[in-house]
Amino acid sequence: MDSGNIAWLLTSASLVLLMTPALALFYGGMSRSKSVLNMMMMSFGAMAVVGVAWIFVGNGISVGESMAGGLFGNPTSDLFLNASWVSGDGEALISTGFGATFAIITVALISGSIADRAKFSAWLVFSFLWAILVYSPVSHWVWGGGILSDAGPIFNEDWFPQDFAGGTVVHINAGVAGLVLALLLGVRKGFGKEPFKPHNLPFVMIGAALLWFGWFGFNAGSAFAADDSAAAAWVNTTAATVAAILGWLLVEKIRDGKATSLGAASGVVAGLVAITPAAVAVDPWGALVIGVLAGVFSSLAVGLKYKFGYDDSLDVVGVHLVSGLWGTVAIGLIGTTTFGAWDGLFLGGGFGGLWAQIVAAGVTIAYSAVATLIIGLAIKHTMGFRVSEEIEVAGIDLAEHGETAYEEAK
Amino acid sequence: MDSGNIAWLLTSASLVLLMTPALALFYGGMSRSKSVLNMMMMSFGAMAVVGVAWIFVGNGISVGESMAGGLFGNPTSDLFLNASWVSGDGEALISTGFGATFAIITVALISGSIADRAKFSAWLVFSFLWAILVYSPVSHWVWGGGILSDAGPIFNEDWFPQDFAGGTVVHINAGVAGLVLALLLGVRKGFGKEPFKPHNLPFVMIGAALLWFGWFGFNAGSAFAADDSAAAAWVNTTAATVAAILGWLLVEKIRDGKATSLGAASGVVAGLVAITPAAVAVDPWGALVIGVLAGVFSSLAVGLKYKFGYDDSLDVVGVHLVSGLWGTVAIGLIGTTTFGAWDGLFLGGGFGGLWAQIVAAGVTIAYSAVATLIIGLAIKHTMGFRVSEEIEVAGIDLAEHGETAYEEAK
Amino acid sequence: MDSGNIAWLLTSASLVLLMTPALALFYGGMSRSKSVLNMMMMSFGAMAVVGVAWIFVGNGISVGESMAGGLFGNPTSDLFLNASWVSGDGEALISTGFGATFAIITVALISGSIADRAKFSAWLVFSFLWAILVYSPVSHWVWGGGILSDAGPIFNEDWFPQDFAGGTVVHINAGVAGLVLALLLGVRKGFGKEPFKPHNLPFVMIGAALLWFGWFGFNAGSAFAADDSAAAAWVNTTAATVAAILGWLLVEKIRDGKATSLGAASGVVAGLVAITPAAVAVDPWGALVIGVLAGVFSSLAVGLKYKFGYDDSLDVVGVHLVSGLWGTVAIGLIGTTTFGAWDGLFLGGGFGGLWAQIVAAGVTIAYSAVATLIIGLAIKHTMGFRVSEEIEVAGIDLAEHGETAYEEAK
Repeated sequence: MDSGNIAWLLTSASLVLLMTPALALFYGGMSRSKSVLNMMMMSFGAMAVVGVAWIFVGNGISVGESMAGGLFGNPTSDLFLNASWVSGDGEALISTGFGATFAIITVALISGSIADRAKFSAWLVFSFLWAILVYSPVSHWVWGGGILSDAGPIFNEDWFPQDFAGGTVVHINAGVAGLVLALLLGVRKGFGKEPFKPHNLPFVMIGAALLWFGWFGFNAGSAFAADDSAAAAWVNTTAATVAAILGWLLVEKIRDGKATSLGAASGVVAGLVAITPAAVAVDPWGALVIGVLAGVFSSLAVGLKYKFGYDDSLDVVGVHLVSGLWGTVAIGLIGTTTFGAWDGLFLGGGFGGLWAQIVAAGVTIAYSAVATLIIGLAIKHTMGFRVSEEIEVAGIDLAEHGETAYEEAK
Repeated sequence: MDSGNIAWLLTSASLVLLMTPALALFYGGMSRSKSVLNMMMMSFGAMAVVGVAWIFVGNGISVGESMAGGLFGNPTSDLFLNASWVSGDGEALISTGFGATFAIITVALISGSIADRAKFSAWLVFSFLWAILVYSPVSHWVWGGGILSDAGPIFNEDWFPQDFAGGTVVHINAGVAGLVLALLLGVRKGFGKEPFKPHNLPFVMIGAALLWFGWFGFNAGSAFAADDSAAAAWVNTTAATVAAILGWLLVEKIRDGKATSLGAASGVVAGLVAITPAAVAVDPWGALVIGVLAGVFSSLAVGLKYKFGYDDSLDVVGVHLVSGLWGTVAIGLIGTTTFGAWDGLFLGGGFGGLWAQIVAAGVTIAYSAVATLIIGLAIKHTMGFRVSEEIEVAGIDLAEHGETAYEEAK
Repeated sequence: MDSGNIAWLLTSASLVLLMTPALALFYGGMSRSKSVLNMMMMSFGAMAVVGVAWIFVGNGISVGESMAGGLFGNPTSDLFLNASWVSGDGEALISTGFGATFAIITVALISGSIADRAKFSAWLVFSFLWAILVYSPVSHWVWGGGILSDAGPIFNEDWFPQDFAGGTVVHINAGVAGLVLALLLGVRKGFGKEPFKPHNLPFVMIGAALLWFGWFGFNAGSAFAADDSAAAAWVNTTAATVAAILGWLLVEKIRDGKATSLGAASGVVAGLVAITPAAVAVDPWGALVIGVLAGVFSSLAVGLKYKFGYDDSLDVVGVHLVSGLWGTVAIGLIGTTTFGAWDGLFLGGGFGGLWAQIVAAGVTIAYSAVATLIIGLAIKHTMGFRVSEEIEVAGIDLAEHGETAYEEAK
């Protein structure tokens, strides 16, 4: 037992736990004032049910011994975390907690694509099922020795996907699920015709900043030690994020003439997303490149929903899917071996790494799309997933939660 | 000196310090917009005067060598933290800081029961006296080798109260003090007739989330090391909290038909309170049970104030006293020895532990009630504790602080 | 490699990174609702461009081998952090990240003096240049073995300036730059005639609290280890801050009859600023003295802008320059050698230390004033630094960023 490593894992798990309420603030500020509570409650609800799901079977599915050829870990291997608990091993225990916070934030991310219109009870059921049936197995594939790891049937010790902190498992996975749910639930009344302006931009900015703060635990904590790799991840996380702010604001300035606060906050998130898989796999200059292009790509991608007509309300697709894909693929191009596993294509490493990254992304996309669709359809055709149009127009907060966010002075 | 332990104690003390402004946001959001500043100032004021009180004599009373048979530590043993400082010992020094943050948050918790109606100067005097005369000795009883510890006259090495991070010292203590002050100051004008709705529910939710974040330092930091126990405390803290959200929302859904954001935020706090004494004394399934029932019990208890007519404005009694008692007693029922000291009644340990928990709770309740009443009466009959009805109705912010929280655009 | 030290440096760097968005909230709350976004964007913009500047050449200038007799470190010694990266050394790497967060917050602090009236593009250019030409070399002087260190030409091993975490480098430096820019840009329309009231005081309070939280990383992290000094810095940071709240509120109570929430929040910052250089150089009673007087001095100093007619809008001069100077000089008076380097004048140490502190402050003031003026003038006479009066009156958010902070429900 190394007390420094445990100290950093305790800190990291706490930081990642904070990311979900930070997301609630980020998403809540972007919502309209009549639906901010429902938006935030989707994050808080995910904390509750995904937390329970993870303690119940999620941790076992994620890190238990591989079953079915690496499709998932043994679900009964750590029921109610009992095996980890009785081991008495601090590093094992806090790792289960760290894992729980990842499952929670991944589910919460999805909620941004269905703002203002999902039944809260349906969302809770979706969260519970998706955490167990999608997040947990995919995390096993990549991090638990499953089918997308170097121990799996597809790759070998030379070429295997690198995903340091969750480009595939978290961001592509959540981004695809968000797209599927947005299509399944349909557009909000007025989508594409009236602007849905953020009701509180300072909330958005502080939410993004708290996400950034928590993300240090996410990325640097994924070293599972307070070591050189953790420090490298910290530095690259910052490099990519500051560059992504500039990338996003530059596009806005050129395209619209003005750099917005929503753009700065969104740039923060895009940069963080893109560097997540690549946190130690590229050098700092590579992190700057990944960051600035994440800002550019996602700032352009958030407009696609109007073109293609899917109401990804708070840009889960444009930010998490697009920048998650970019960061995942970028390792195949500019990965280095100072802290990473292999060299990327542009650095003399050949196509092996790029191919591994593309396969990992593709498999994640395919599984997330199909599994999310099945879960979503099952909910839609049983309990229903969407509130009525009357409720949506009047404001979901009052109907679903019996509350309004703000009371004026009397 | 172990750098990992110091790293975690530095982090934990910082996290617990953050809990008091988090509480200010949680309480402030629940207040009306004409009294939010006063509510927040009670927390900030507690930081100032309790901080000074702790540095002056509080730390000595809490952890100095026992005097008067274990009633308090030597008040002069660490005046102005001089003894700790000249020792040059980092673990001792940061432990004094960690202790200060506990004293501060405990006092700040009390303020929720007297929202909208206490003189700020009276509150500062109360905070200073209560920190020295109530918090410091009670913390000595339980954690400093005093009368409620295994070294005291009541208990022995087999059976003694377990309070890992402050069920008795912090939550029962503050909850009782809150009840006494609510009775002493009397109800607000309109209590029970008009609804006092929270003016900003996103503040309440983010305040609760920041409390949760800080609470990792509170509970896992109470291991005073980055070790297996700290990791166990982290895991149980999360397990109880996610379950408590579900418990509270379930009661609301069944009773009122709607799950509220105020309920989710309150559930967070109830779960955290209940697991505080039990953070390592029960297994994860026990933490889930403690959490879900904390949500149920406290969600039912917050209605008692209307039945019995005490204006515990922001539910210090319903949340901190009730869930603090529940968590304290629960150890006697389902405590285990993986990380805990003895087995609870339901796990074959007999009545010894349950009895120890009940005695510790009872002694804390009795002392806190009497001492708070004496301090409160002394203030009431000298400088006065309550503002005039005119000020209360017009809004305490303007009268006591010369400010209004929000300015409209001009 | 010590994992406990790395754990604490990872945590500290994350905490200091959080300080800049915390400052954005603190400053943003003090702004009017029509200019809050621009205020916050100056902090976010500083994160972006100063982050890039630091990675590019700033770190080299700050900690590279001394050139020109100690005037700056070798700018090419760590281009794009390449040398630190390929060293593979975690402590070196996270130290570059820690340094980046200091550069960022120092630049962001300056923005408070030019609220409501600076072109965003001009601010970005200023930030980039100032970080490279002012912050980086001054940090080299004090912390990198430059002209204000014991290795420099002015001082010797017996008497040299003590600046643990940035009294000169950060607060005096930013305070002077703020004063110069306030004079260069001129007063806002209505300055001194109409009150510019904070639009959201809870934001101000939470911003100050998050600054406090982050400041633990700033001060205790400056030990560059999880050791006795870090613990000492933590304790003194808290002692000074709680005392400063009391100092500021006491002045308000005596002078105005009411203790304000703006005063409490400002007192927090003043105390933190003053203890920054002295975090280990004085005993806890000295920290209390430094804190309470920081509260008194700064609460009196913030009124000077009306007397002398400079529109230091959010009191960068009154808080950071005044309390930064006070804390720097105070070491010369009451410094001790438990954790510090030499005894102050009142403790038998003679005038050597006091003189060293005054020289360090004086050199910093002179260089910051001249260099800031040159940069500011260059911007003013090329791209222009100030928006038009029409934009200022209508609100800078809409004109510069195309946004308004808040949307009412429809």
